[in-house]
Amino acid sequence: MSIDRVAIIGLGLLGGSVGLSCHEHAPQIVTTGYDASPAVRARAAGRGLVGKVCDTLAGAVANADLVILCVPVGAMAGVAHDMAPHLPAGVIVTDVGSSKQSVVEDLTAALPGVSVVPAHPVAGTEQSGPDAGFATLFANRWCIITPPEWANPQHVDALSAFWAALGARIEIMDPQHHDLVLAVTSHIPHLIAFTIVGTASDLEDVTRSEVIKYSAGGFRDFTRIAASDPTMWRDVFLHNKSAVLEMLGRFTEDLTAMQRAIRSGDGDALFDLFERTRAIRRSIIEQGQDDAKPDFGRGH
Amino acid sequence: MSIDRVAIIGLGLLGGSVGLSCHEHAPQIVTTGYDASPAVRARAAGRGLVGKVCDTLAGAVANADLVILCVPVGAMAGVAHDMAPHLPAGVIVTDVGSSKQSVVEDLTAALPGVSVVPAHPVAGTEQSGPDAGFATLFANRWCIITPPEWANPQHVDALSAFWAALGARIEIMDPQHHDLVLAVTSHIPHLIAFTIVGTASDLEDVTRSEVIKYSAGGFRDFTRIAASDPTMWRDVFLHNKSAVLEMLGRFTEDLTAMQRAIRSGDGDALFDLFERTRAIRRSIIEQGQDDAKPDFGRGH
Repeated sequence: MSIDRVAIIGLGLLGGSVGLSCHEHAPQIVTTGYDASPAVRARAAGRGLVGKVCDTLAGAVANADLVILCVPVGAMAGVAHDMAPHLPAGVIVTDVGSSKQSVVEDLTAALPGVSVVPAHPVAGTEQSGPDAGFATLFANRWCIITPPEWANPQHVDALSAFWAALGARIEIMDPQHHDLVLAVTSHIPHLIAFTIVGTASDLEDVTRSEVIKYSAGGFRDFTRIAASDPTMWRDVFLHNKSAVLEMLGRFTEDLTAMQRAIRSGDGDALFDLFERTRAIRRSIIEQGQDDAKPDFGRGH
Repeated sequence: MSIDRVAIIGLGLLGGSVGLSCHEHAPQIVTTGYDASPAVRARAAGRGLVGKVCDTLAGAVANADLVILCVPVGAMAGVAHDMAPHLPAGVIVTDVGSSKQSVVEDLTAALPGVSVVPAHPVAGTEQSGPDAGFATLFANRWCIITPPEWANPQHVDALSAFWAALGARIEIMDPQHHDLVLAVTSHIPHLIAFTIVGTASDLEDVTRSEVIKYSAGGFRDFTRIAASDPTMWRDVFLHNKSAVLEMLGRFTEDLTAMQRAIRSGDGDALFDLFERTRAIRRSIIEQGQDDAKPDFGRGH
């Protein structure tokens, strides 16, 4: 099957980037879009994020081959329920949510008899809203597709081809394993970043102004991801609770071991860890998932 | 007093950048340099990091107005002891170390009667060694000068003028307060980054290859600072132990509160924190300590 008409529901960073990327990389696809916020719809129309911004969810999905839900994972069930009566026969419903077990459950429960193939493009920035999207967000990034066991293989292939056309690299993964992998590569890093930025802004003996002035010592790297969309991230933690708590437990064990090494003056334990972690960085750069420029090109 | 002859001891990222920055921004200054490693000295001479690379510590400091120690904080006492007999009268000795109470103690103990004015330019990259330095490392970054109470005010002024000439902004601070501020803006972020990268590479149920592939979800931001020099960072944690343990205690309290909020499904507590942390990010960008480009210009 080929995908000719795509409906994008939710026109923030991800939805907007899907629309702009379709326009640039697959201009034969007709795109429609909807967002629950009239202000977002107006801005989306102004930026041309999709071919046609519709005033109703029903109107946006009416003729689609593929519906992509680009809303926080806590909103998936409600949107799926609302659009269910309006979906055309043969449609594929997918999403871009950061946790996948809850999305598989929510969408299959709300859409009995509909072909549901959840996915997660591992790409983003700390920006959000209809002004944040751009056409190259998915270039050279991985898109993880997490079909339920009963998914139609042709639909999985069609969705893979769609994401590949937008520049993404494709991986098929079990939803449960996805949630564990993303807990460590994305959810725990965000939780830690949000927390340390909160800790730093609540101190009495160090002022907020000092924290900001001397942030180039390392802290600023954490503030970028701690500026991400609060609603989206609240939902991720509530919907991937068990994997997040499992990985958080392992991290705090390791942090406690480092604390003990500092307290006891065990320089060898510190050095051994610090030496090991450089190898991971090198691999990330070699595989094109980050840039080797020192300091991420911060103005020099 | 004016500073005309500068000796740079240790020719890695920081030492090399001081030399190159002098050459570009204060070409009237004569620079000499020394490094304990013959290989580093050869590379430093090849890159022209300083005007003259000397084969001995004594030779490098013999005619200096200002000696800058650019070695790990754990090596300060030994280097100071070794150079003490060779220092000319009237010299100022400073450093670029990331912890300051231990440096004030080590240098004043090893150099009785010598003018010691420690400092910390809050600038760096994850690179290290004689190939890592560049002339603009200190541009628009803060340099914190931490004179002991008995320091000569004219020497503090001369050192301030020197760093200002290299493009840095100057702050005078008590060494103890410096160590508390940097514990939160630099040392704890590094410790957390080293730890989470270690945790991620030790998992059995998620492979290292998966961690690397999906690092664009947030993890890669941590790997940058976790690639920093292991010796330098081991020494920072051993020499700023009490402030690091104090700040680590506050962070783990806050992280435990987040863990409890996730476990109990308290979405409001999560949202409240995530909303607050965006303001800090905005201030850092407004004050020129980071770049607002989405994703730090990672290739789009």
